[in-house]
Amino acid sequence: MNERDSLKVNAKGHLEIGKADVVSLCEKYGTPLYVIDENHIRKMCKIYKETVDKYYGNGTVLYASKALSCKGIYNIVNSEKIGIDTVSLGELATAKSVDFPAEKIYFHGNNKTKEEIEFALEYEINTIVLDSLDEIEYVNEICKSKNKNQKVLLRVNPGVEAHTHSYIQTTRTDSKFGVLVANGDALNAVEKILNSTNLIFYGLHCHIGSQIFEKEAFVLAAEKIIEFVKDIKVKLNFMVKELNFGGGFGIWYTDNDKKMKEDDYREYVLALIEVINKYVENGEIDKPYLAIEPGRSIVGEAGITLYEVGNQKNIEGIKQYVAVNGGMFDNPRNALYQAEYTAVLASDMNREIKNTVTIAGKCCESGDIIARDVKLPDVKRGDIIAILSTGAYNYSMASNYNRNTVPPMVIVKNGKSDYLIKPQTIEQIMENDNLPKI
Amino acid sequence: MNERDSLKVNAKGHLEIGKADVVSLCEKYGTPLYVIDENHIRKMCKIYKETVDKYYGNGTVLYASKALSCKGIYNIVNSEKIGIDTVSLGELATAKSVDFPAEKIYFHGNNKTKEEIEFALEYEINTIVLDSLDEIEYVNEICKSKNKNQKVLLRVNPGVEAHTHSYIQTTRTDSKFGVLVANGDALNAVEKILNSTNLIFYGLHCHIGSQIFEKEAFVLAAEKIIEFVKDIKVKLNFMVKELNFGGGFGIWYTDNDKKMKEDDYREYVLALIEVINKYVENGEIDKPYLAIEPGRSIVGEAGITLYEVGNQKNIEGIKQYVAVNGGMFDNPRNALYQAEYTAVLASDMNREIKNTVTIAGKCCESGDIIARDVKLPDVKRGDIIAILSTGAYNYSMASNYNRNTVPPMVIVKNGKSDYLIKPQTIEQIMENDNLPKI
Repeated sequence: MNERDSLKVNAKGHLEIGKADVVSLCEKYGTPLYVIDENHIRKMCKIYKETVDKYYGNGTVLYASKALSCKGIYNIVNSEKIGIDTVSLGELATAKSVDFPAEKIYFHGNNKTKEEIEFALEYEINTIVLDSLDEIEYVNEICKSKNKNQKVLLRVNPGVEAHTHSYIQTTRTDSKFGVLVANGDALNAVEKILNSTNLIFYGLHCHIGSQIFEKEAFVLAAEKIIEFVKDIKVKLNFMVKELNFGGGFGIWYTDNDKKMKEDDYREYVLALIEVINKYVENGEIDKPYLAIEPGRSIVGEAGITLYEVGNQKNIEGIKQYVAVNGGMFDNPRNALYQAEYTAVLASDMNREIKNTVTIAGKCCESGDIIARDVKLPDVKRGDIIAILSTGAYNYSMASNYNRNTVPPMVIVKNGKSDYLIKPQTIEQIMENDNLPKI
Repeated sequence: MNERDSLKVNAKGHLEIGKADVVSLCEKYGTPLYVIDENHIRKMCKIYKETVDKYYGNGTVLYASKALSCKGIYNIVNSEKIGIDTVSLGELATAKSVDFPAEKIYFHGNNKTKEEIEFALEYEINTIVLDSLDEIEYVNEICKSKNKNQKVLLRVNPGVEAHTHSYIQTTRTDSKFGVLVANGDALNAVEKILNSTNLIFYGLHCHIGSQIFEKEAFVLAAEKIIEFVKDIKVKLNFMVKELNFGGGFGIWYTDNDKKMKEDDYREYVLALIEVINKYVENGEIDKPYLAIEPGRSIVGEAGITLYEVGNQKNIEGIKQYVAVNGGMFDNPRNALYQAEYTAVLASDMNREIKNTVTIAGKCCESGDIIARDVKLPDVKRGDIIAILSTGAYNYSMASNYNRNTVPPMVIVKNGKSDYLIKPQTIEQIMENDNLPKI
């Protein structure tokens, strides 16, 4: 396990999260069960906010809520005085339903719909992040029709790939996101925005990828973006007021990842601040407003998923399968990305670890695997397995594949627990089934 | 396009499905929209049923409903006098809600839960297909506690991989499904079932994989299964009464696949029948009851998905992205399997095809691609693109990723249309969000 306040082993040999015994949680709420620790979420919000406030002073933290979007999370991050980044009508509507302050909301997406843009304008959110040349006119026209002016950023693609950082995925030259700096498209886009009637250009957004551990990648991207800021000043006589460097800060899933500590997250932000300060101190740019958008790192390690062991299958000399009562419907990340996880026998943490097993789900599909080749003790039917670091991109990517219900999520704090997301029922899955009359 | 009765181009140059103009469907129901042609589904049911009835006479067709499970589909296949294969409580409950005849239901899964097994027993379904040695005692005990006897099959893994058929995925030796024949596990399992108190052993199930075009693979697996039937007779003095060869019959997605015709599906079944007959005629086995489980081939080509074109991004010399208002939340198959699709400009089928483009979804994720490198004409915002062959494993795998709503599915027949699945609302997505009190 990573060294976290969140997870402990208690005197009964059970795993605890946020001082709650997971075996008791399973008895109370059933399995599969997502569990998330409120204090961990708050701690991460504080690390980012304090770092920006203390070391930069002119910026904001936006929780990238696609990692885990629901009403309760929005309330928590709001109470921590940070904003949110949203990417759909559903996320915007969820924020609105809890009266999330409009001035702290950014809206992203490579293909925002008219309905989404209109909702964002009506809500009077802080910023729409434009993603393509094509979108500039589209959003401007909708603003005009609604008689609104809207603050915007432009998402740019600095094309960092050329510098051999192959782990940087979303700013490869070939990406559906952002406007390329290298071929002049980004400069054209800025000019187009500046010449628009209803868009108020503030600056640039860049998100270089996910699950990144090397701060050099962020530094490189930041430098390229600021060089572009200088270019905009020279060629269009406009000084960019805001830089949004996105997120992508890595978290610990297995010991192949870095065991991230509070200071590591602080250092990412400090590295970005250092780049900006260097240019500001040289008088090359005016000090911009800084935004960062951590998502996975705020909720990822805060969450675990609890499953009950079912059938096992030992294919001698080949593989030992341990099947659990969840699957790719509650966690598709192994199927999608061959993502790796750490599993522990939460109901008996002291049992001797001696097997390498593959944890299979219950879906009717060979690829329905939760985690491959994890270390576990001998387990038996009814044992509780916890998969760690499932707070991000698990519930948010859940499906009803095989008409399985999405598990509930329970939030824990100092030993207390309550639903953050209530259990889905089969009736809810069937609710939209219609008996056609044709 | 594949040569199907279902899809035509009308005088307006619009795509028609089941004699319904897709542009009119989009105007009526909005986009994204799943559309499925009832006659195509019925035609496929008939092909399988007639082939089994006419050329074998002692068997059944079970629609593998995980491909697309909803109330309306169960009614259609029931009216075609075929049964269903189910894999979860959700599918069983959906079947029960429309009074699907219990005697025509089979229940599969590598890790059935107690709740599911109890529901199946209560419903008095035809067959539970046992999937592992581990499961035999478990299901028997539940039967005993409920004072029920249950007809069962055993899913076996003939390990066809050794014979170089690398496309056969689910019967590789390393699979979470079935019990290996080669190492003696399957024979032990049969003996265990025969010696159980409440399980009534009928025979064997085998499913060799998905999207298979070569009937030789089915023949090879069938031969191996029947050799095992002979082995059971010799070693346990039991003559197997039923063989269930599963599904896996391929469908046309792109011209890299075979353009399947009615006769091709008939020939799969005939090939299986031929293998059985050969052994029966030689007096090696008694004529077994035959079950087959087509899923994808019944609904796959019957369905299309309609999207509206939004932003485009042309990265000169690298890639042209056309973004649509759907994405991996309604069709995750490219993200999961790098699945390929055929796209057509449904709102203007006569426009000259001259570009190779990648159709991107609207999710905030680089991997959110619907189809890569497809041929399309120049398109503009608001044009309707149809992705073909999306009737299987699209709605059934849909999620609320990014809090996007699952699109509705409309069923068409002879120009008429109605919802098969009504649109999901954002309120439904938020319905289980709880404001915790801790």
